[in-house]
Amino acid sequence: AKAHKIAVLAGDGIGPEVMAEARKVLARVSEKFGPQFEFKEELVGGAAIDAKGKALPADTLATCEASDAILFGSVGGPKWEKLPPNEQPERGALLPLRKHFGLFANLRPSICYPSLTHASPVKEELIAGGFDVLCVRELTGGLYFGQPKFRGEKDGEETAIDTMIYKKSEIVRIAHVAFKAAQGRRKHVTSIDKANVLENGLLWRATVEEVAKDYPDVKLSHLYVDNAAMQLIKQPRNFDTVLCENLFGDILSDEMAMIAGSLGMLASASLGKAKEGGLYFGLFEPSGGTAPDIAGKGIANPIAQILSAALLLRFSLGLEKEAAAIETAVRHVIDRGLRTGDIYSGADDTRKVGTAEMGDAIVAEL
Amino acid sequence: AKAHKIAVLAGDGIGPEVMAEARKVLARVSEKFGPQFEFKEELVGGAAIDAKGKALPADTLATCEASDAILFGSVGGPKWEKLPPNEQPERGALLPLRKHFGLFANLRPSICYPSLTHASPVKEELIAGGFDVLCVRELTGGLYFGQPKFRGEKDGEETAIDTMIYKKSEIVRIAHVAFKAAQGRRKHVTSIDKANVLENGLLWRATVEEVAKDYPDVKLSHLYVDNAAMQLIKQPRNFDTVLCENLFGDILSDEMAMIAGSLGMLASASLGKAKEGGLYFGLFEPSGGTAPDIAGKGIANPIAQILSAALLLRFSLGLEKEAAAIETAVRHVIDRGLRTGDIYSGADDTRKVGTAEMGDAIVAEL
Ligand SMILES: CC(C)[C@H](C(=O)O)[C@@H](O)C(=O)O
Ligand SMILES: CC(C)[C@H](C(=O)O)[C@@H](O)C(=O)O
Repeated sequence: AKAHKIAVLAGDGIGPEVMAEARKVLARVSEKFGPQFEFKEELVGGAAIDAKGKALPADTLATCEASDAILFGSVGGPKWEKLPPNEQPERGALLPLRKHFGLFANLRPSICYPSLTHASPVKEELIAGGFDVLCVRELTGGLYFGQPKFRGEKDGEETAIDTMIYKKSEIVRIAHVAFKAAQGRRKHVTSIDKANVLENGLLWRATVEEVAKDYPDVKLSHLYVDNAAMQLIKQPRNFDTVLCENLFGDILSDEMAMIAGSLGMLASASLGKAKEGGLYFGLFEPSGGTAPDIAGKGIANPIAQILSAALLLRFSLGLEKEAAAIETAVRHVIDRGLRTGDIYSGADDTRKVGTAEMGDAIVAEL
Repeated sequence: AKAHKIAVLAGDGIGPEVMAEARKVLARVSEKFGPQFEFKEELVGGAAIDAKGKALPADTLATCEASDAILFGSVGGPKWEKLPPNEQPERGALLPLRKHFGLFANLRPSICYPSLTHASPVKEELIAGGFDVLCVRELTGGLYFGQPKFRGEKDGEETAIDTMIYKKSEIVRIAHVAFKAAQGRRKHVTSIDKANVLENGLLWRATVEEVAKDYPDVKLSHLYVDNAAMQLIKQPRNFDTVLCENLFGDILSDEMAMIAGSLGMLASASLGKAKEGGLYFGLFEPSGGTAPDIAGKGIANPIAQILSAALLLRFSLGLEKEAAAIETAVRHVIDRGLRTGDIYSGADDTRKVGTAEMGDAIVAEL
């Protein structure tokens, strides 16, 4: 069988450390299950700015184009915060990658494991037993890319304009992603909008209602974004699949991640159009950031990166069995009490470990 | 002395019940401190739609114009949700009132009383001792009113457009409100934006930095809105004054209110330009909604409405002593253990009371 080509963009901060663990896990997957991977490492973000003057160098983009998927670490850090915004690691690398590859569907599972509810800022009684919410965020439309996007003189005064714009077809395609995902879950989509104020909200709601007709087995609810920001805290267990436009998804998926309590364990997938065979080109990355404060110390939680690799196997390579095996291994290691510092509570029968030890344990479990 | 004219717009759901208690408290303020109030009740929201076919009838608007301030209850409910969006209670009454009177500054204190931390969804250890965050939200700009605002055919497809637009002067005036408020508080403004994506974010951040120079005694921090949605949950005690544009303020102030744990106790003020003497025309309303599920049962918490009346006295009538007296009375009644259902935990030395009994206790305390 041909080797699967994976572009590896570790980036900044804890990116390289946690990526190393994901690579170990993928090597073990090859050994155990057979699929071959061809990895190509490229610079991105601050590391690329330092070496080549650009957050997303042409080489990096070319490698991504020649690959089946991108395994991404994280980018950014204090060192590059004074650059002009368009050149900064996040804006200079992430947004162009999303746009270039048409990665319109961002899937962010927020999972709170039953044994890790202590790490959540939310009261135990509200999250007992943990929860599992999937945020489906539209990623290439809305205020992020809409034109006009402008800052300058207007009517004699400095003025800024950003445009929230959605075509119906953009809403249709992301809604299908959410409903399909919900069918494999608890069959409940909560669609978020601000239909009481925005024209986009009205079009969003009407379109999602239409798409819902194709999925009679899935229940659809609507929530205003401000109300959603409240209810997610109070009753995260009442949510299954949350469907959002780009900016609302940015805010609410981060809020959900915080409620889950362990950013270091949350993976994400950004997918383009399905190709033949139902696979997607995609970019897979942890939900957390570069965590510059703990970078280089060998204490970061590698699980988000490892689970991102699992999502890559599932969505871009069609290796469902292998993806599920990684996810199961992670659960077992957590059940056995291994904890990196971010999820360690000092409880009996748990043990604090570093980045590499956590990675090794997951490899061994596989 | 001339009587102060107050337009009373109780609205729907629990609005009339809690308004009755605020009226009792204001009557007691007259009795005790002397100022005279001339109240004029008008219909608004669903009640006005039912009686006059419009959420904001001309009579109501005329009364508001002839008044020194508006004491508002809340509007909306399932009965009117099928109306065209522009005619619904919220959009048909609240937004036009804000725009008509130029109420650009929305102040929403999120206070978690030390004795009510149990009512918050956030773990006790993160909020021990309670907290007090003031959200200053710009209320007449951004995506709410920006043009073009459009839904229809574009390039052969149904499309929605909303425009996020801020002029520098709009940002300057709300920033001054936030810095002035912070001076009377813990001298720390956290300004929220999405400067890594939006041109509005860049203008917002640069402008707030400029205004900050006039307030060397106030510390200024910046947070991206997605990060703010996380940090507010984890460390609400680290925030003092949070400054937001319109939509971000809508989302984050509701999130903060939920974190405080007792929506039924949170007041808000929406203020226009300062008049001579430093007073503001304003609209004062509880942060919570109409709560149709408990309306008419006499169990709603009237404190948000009563504290909204206190804000009215402070900002629109300049009656600081009277405002503070109401706030102190509320604190004492809470300290004495009186609780409406929404904040009752069953703890010893607390007692569950209804709407009227809570109002009466506050009156007695005054
Ligand atoms: C870094 C930033 C541009 C990005 C976004 O806003 O989409 C990030 O917050 C995310 O959610 O991936
Ligand atoms: C009802 C709605 C239009 C309003 C808003 O979005 O401003 C409400 O959510 C608020 O915060 O006052």
